[in-house]
Amino acid sequence: MDVTVEPEWWYLWIPLAASLVALAVIAYLITYIKKKPVGTDKMKEIAEAIRIGAKAYLKRQNSTIAIVAVIIAICLYVYDFIHHGGIPFYSLAFVLGAATSTLAGYIGMNISTIAHVRTTEAARKRDLPEATKIAFRGGAVTGLGITSISILSLTILYYVYSMVAGVPNPELLVSFGFGASLVGLFAQLGGGIYTKGADVGADISGKVEEGIPEDDPRNPAVIADLVGDNVGDCAGRGADLYESFTDNNIGAMILGLALIEYFGFSGVVFPLIAGAIGIISSIMGILAVGNIKKDDPMMSINAGYLLMGITAAILFYVSVVLMLGGKLVFFLDILIGIITAVLVGLLIQYYTSYQYKPVRTIAEAAKTGPATNIITGLAVGMKSTGLPLILLSAAIVISYVISGGVTNHKLGFYGIAMATLGMLSMTSIIMSSDTFGPIVDNAGGIAEMSGLGEDVRKITDMLDSIGNTTKAITKGYAMGCATLSAFVLFASYLEIVSARIPDFTISLTSPITILGLFLGGIVPFLFSAYAIEAVGKAAYRIVEEVRRQFREIPGLREGKAKPRYDVAVDIATKAGIKGMLIPGAIGIISPIIVGILFGTETLAAFLLSATVTGVILAIFMFNAGGAWDNAKKYIETGKLGGKGSDTHKAAVVGDTVGDPLKDTSGPSLHILVKLINIIALTLTVLFLHPVILLLIG
Amino acid sequence: MDVTVEPEWWYLWIPLAASLVALAVIAYLITYIKKKPVGTDKMKEIAEAIRIGAKAYLKRQNSTIAIVAVIIAICLYVYDFIHHGGIPFYSLAFVLGAATSTLAGYIGMNISTIAHVRTTEAARKRDLPEATKIAFRGGAVTGLGITSISILSLTILYYVYSMVAGVPNPELLVSFGFGASLVGLFAQLGGGIYTKGADVGADISGKVEEGIPEDDPRNPAVIADLVGDNVGDCAGRGADLYESFTDNNIGAMILGLALIEYFGFSGVVFPLIAGAIGIISSIMGILAVGNIKKDDPMMSINAGYLLMGITAAILFYVSVVLMLGGKLVFFLDILIGIITAVLVGLLIQYYTSYQYKPVRTIAEAAKTGPATNIITGLAVGMKSTGLPLILLSAAIVISYVISGGVTNHKLGFYGIAMATLGMLSMTSIIMSSDTFGPIVDNAGGIAEMSGLGEDVRKITDMLDSIGNTTKAITKGYAMGCATLSAFVLFASYLEIVSARIPDFTISLTSPITILGLFLGGIVPFLFSAYAIEAVGKAAYRIVEEVRRQFREIPGLREGKAKPRYDVAVDIATKAGIKGMLIPGAIGIISPIIVGILFGTETLAAFLLSATVTGVILAIFMFNAGGAWDNAKKYIETGKLGGKGSDTHKAAVVGDTVGDPLKDTSGPSLHILVKLINIIALTLTVLFLHPVILLLIG
Repeated sequence: MDVTVEPEWWYLWIPLAASLVALAVIAYLITYIKKKPVGTDKMKEIAEAIRIGAKAYLKRQNSTIAIVAVIIAICLYVYDFIHHGGIPFYSLAFVLGAATSTLAGYIGMNISTIAHVRTTEAARKRDLPEATKIAFRGGAVTGLGITSISILSLTILYYVYSMVAGVPNPELLVSFGFGASLVGLFAQLGGGIYTKGADVGADISGKVEEGIPEDDPRNPAVIADLVGDNVGDCAGRGADLYESFTDNNIGAMILGLALIEYFGFSGVVFPLIAGAIGIISSIMGILAVGNIKKDDPMMSINAGYLLMGITAAILFYVSVVLMLGGKLVFFLDILIGIITAVLVGLLIQYYTSYQYKPVRTIAEAAKTGPATNIITGLAVGMKSTGLPLILLSAAIVISYVISGGVTNHKLGFYGIAMATLGMLSMTSIIMSSDTFGPIVDNAGGIAEMSGLGEDVRKITDMLDSIGNTTKAITKGYAMGCATLSAFVLFASYLEIVSARIPDFTISLTSPITILGLFLGGIVPFLFSAYAIEAVGKAAYRIVEEVRRQFREIPGLREGKAKPRYDVAVDIATKAGIKGMLIPGAIGIISPIIVGILFGTETLAAFLLSATVTGVILAIFMFNAGGAWDNAKKYIETGKLGGKGSDTHKAAVVGDTVGDPLKDTSGPSLHILVKLINIIALTLTVLFLHPVILLLIG
Repeated sequence: MDVTVEPEWWYLWIPLAASLVALAVIAYLITYIKKKPVGTDKMKEIAEAIRIGAKAYLKRQNSTIAIVAVIIAICLYVYDFIHHGGIPFYSLAFVLGAATSTLAGYIGMNISTIAHVRTTEAARKRDLPEATKIAFRGGAVTGLGITSISILSLTILYYVYSMVAGVPNPELLVSFGFGASLVGLFAQLGGGIYTKGADVGADISGKVEEGIPEDDPRNPAVIADLVGDNVGDCAGRGADLYESFTDNNIGAMILGLALIEYFGFSGVVFPLIAGAIGIISSIMGILAVGNIKKDDPMMSINAGYLLMGITAAILFYVSVVLMLGGKLVFFLDILIGIITAVLVGLLIQYYTSYQYKPVRTIAEAAKTGPATNIITGLAVGMKSTGLPLILLSAAIVISYVISGGVTNHKLGFYGIAMATLGMLSMTSIIMSSDTFGPIVDNAGGIAEMSGLGEDVRKITDMLDSIGNTTKAITKGYAMGCATLSAFVLFASYLEIVSARIPDFTISLTSPITILGLFLGGIVPFLFSAYAIEAVGKAAYRIVEEVRRQFREIPGLREGKAKPRYDVAVDIATKAGIKGMLIPGAIGIISPIIVGILFGTETLAAFLLSATVTGVILAIFMFNAGGAWDNAKKYIETGKLGGKGSDTHKAAVVGDTVGDPLKDTSGPSLHILVKLINIIALTLTVLFLHPVILLLIG
């Protein structure tokens, strides 16, 4: 490689400074939240039980993941030893990727279990703005944590590796992405199985069989359910977006390297700058929430978004002008990414919110029982895959074409990466409002269990419904990010392969390639099957346990005796750990086997097919699940017979079926599509021609 | 094209003779069945009601399809007029394809509505061998009808067109396949929506809500349900296999043409000879059933299969020696096709029969309610996509490689076509045992409605359970045939395109191609969504109607008044016709739009992606549906609480959800994947460079 351009290292000060500022803000937010009062002893006790359960689970999950990670790290170190005389390029990057991803998940879970009870306390004092602020700032710790840890690590690693290797090269970072993806996959799978196993089990045994309300303290599975919100929703979605954010940055840097003759090293570090822009503008937005438009929580959150958006747009414009030779088409790409994210979010809302026809049709179908309710939901879910994917494909094609992809495909791919960077710049603030959801959900649960009365519950219910709206937006957002990131990773796979094999092309005319398409198409189905099955098993065991307790503990039904919460927590924990192993293994091993057995061409077909099928399946699962959920909620507003009617009971079955789809396999598929691509990338960098040999000789 | 080989036209006498013999056998079988007694007046009355309903539906369905077909035929005639001076090459072939497909469906439905009541009558006389024979021979009319009509038409058309054009060319037949596929798609969709709308509606309102048994004469939807078996299962599966059989022959002939330098015209007509071999050996097998091993119906059917298999193997061996230059590798391909069909069938049985673990797990999960039952079934269905598809991909790759595809891909593709021909040679006998299913199902229904008593019902139940076993085999078989046929069509698409564009290759490195993959992946989901939704709507309306009748007709519940069967029949008819339009339009229009907007490369990616996704989705739907069905049946054998228990009720919900998946969208997807490929083939032949110009200029 002919490196004639002198890297302008000072650029790296920007992402470094931005992430350090973010860390300072995080420290401030944590102190702010911790200073708030925690309420009654009863509340403290419940909060503590949730906290202990969540920590215990995360500890066991992380020790299990650690075993897998250590094995892979050793293999990578052997590689490093052979090829780089023991300089641990790949092994260290992998370990750091895995460790930071774990850290991001831990921070999110930890702050959530601190903020929820304080939100309840604010609600107990009838202080809605205060409750909103605490919950949102709790979410912001996760949101900023994800982006700042990622940007900080990538910046330092890139700089140090470049110095050690003597030449700057982002390809050395691929195993960082691998580590992040690996942890992300297991965290989302394990947490997803835990949360939905507990949720479904608690719903069936409590709401359906015993006829007691949600979060009733008599239900032996209620603590497990509340723990699940923390280990599943907070840690899970965080892992997903940490992975999208990190992998996309690495992919975009690799694509930037291919354009070194156009933009010099500015093109390589631009993704880090974009991350910094996202961080800074998100901080402005986050701090505004709860301070502007205090009395209307939704308006306050929207004001934060608006402030963030305007700041980001200005900063992006300036940086494209300064760093990418003023090629404003890339600024346009960034805008396309942001607009696409918004549009996909709106579409998802159309299919999953009960203000619109699809969900109402599902609720209507529940009038003739659970079967028609489920059939209609399946249809809505499948139908909802069309427009979002057409939109995302259009964003890919348009940003490719306008950036000059037709004459030089490297420019086109970089354009796609820009659109993705635009989309991902919102990660911090989006994650803040997303994590807001489980915090207020938990706050409501604590209020119910502590017997705080109707009007406190009313405040937490109001926050909960806002949480559901922000969650719907995040889902569409996560979907868009996962799709585009997977695509950017695939583009960098192509880039890396063609740098090593001149005139590389993937022809579809050979059955061996078509084999790759078939195998790739199967993987998301098998993966989902095991994830869903694990939830089914966990729920089954929890229902059996709850039935046993109601049978064997005298006075439990009357509220005179306490249930054994810990047994249900233990069942969910074991189910989460055990259940994540097989689907996790499928995700890790399948691209390796296909790559080794059939080579780069078949692997490329495999990646594409798995990405396309995985993304479609994920959208189907997300939306079907969300639609069933809201069809039930629609009936609960008093329509079609209201709560307790046969129609409502039928809708509860649909909601329960949708739970593992929308919260376990759906989000895990997002991680899967990125993981297999980054594994392929790592394999190619390591084995096709060791990158270090390319650099120095 | 350099045609130096003189076609040996006398080869065509073989398929011509074989299909004429088959038609004679059909005439004999119809006479044989018609001579059998029809039983009591009550039985006659019910049979007549079913017959009238089925005929009325088919008439309306066919007039609707005719409108679409006429429009397409006119377009094709305009093309013929411009390019061939009015010789109606493509328009005539299209009309014939559509007409023969309609005819095949009509014959199947017609004989079924004659044979069912006679089967009941044989059962009434406690004559099990006679009942088996009548039902199986009724099925055989469909089985032989499909293959002989297809082979007869293709043989004559090929000969006549070759004479008129002055040069023999199977490419002129593509629009015949288009016509057959078009009718097949609508027939399967309309019939599938009819049968499952009626079935689900009757089950929910009768079995679940009123607690009356299946086929109870008090249920106003019972006649619609029985009509559905005829218009859905008989006509539907028939359309599927007629299409597989026809399209694969055309595709294989086109691939044979590309190898003219190797095998002369023998290679082109070999598919027709293979069809003839299938017909002749199936006739031997069919006539044996009911005559050998009379007392054990299952053994008798198996004896028929064995005789068929041995005859076919000998004849294939001889014909490969004589026609394909003794290249025994092609004989091996044929065997691979047959073995794969058997293995896929066994796998499907593993996943869907209650003798094995997967179905028992689903039944077990029903203990905690419908939600866990459905979740587990979804997981089993998704898991079941893995092994069958790996097997089918392996068959594709192995037959490609051993036939010499690595050095000459044309030989490889021809090898794959041979494997498919081997598989499809069993069509007649497989369809015979498949159509056996709805006939005995109807026979049981007639027995129940005529009040023929327990022990008659016992005989029909026994036949019904055999019908379910043969149905499971057919499903795996239809799956294998659809996958391989779609692939053969894709190979001939490639062949035709590369004959016109030298050095044609499909590169996966362009986002425009990837757009094709995304769009192709969406189509099966959208298609299924509308098909499933139509069933949901139809069922909903029927439930409402049944509820209304039970409410408004005094004495209905006590069996003192007669229900209005015709209203439910009318609802199902309208739902079938209306419901088939949107998914049908998606199937027809999507490849045309992609082809016109983005060209041959993107269209190729679209075809592959739609095929892969469609096939996987179909397997998932088939197996999930089958597994739920049998989990319910397992409980009905008295396990886990048996019939009437809460576990059983939960399993009924799963079964109902599975109905539209396994009998409407699943089988329709099979047709879809072939339809889009044959449309692409037709488009290419017509527009890329008109074939006639290639031939004469």
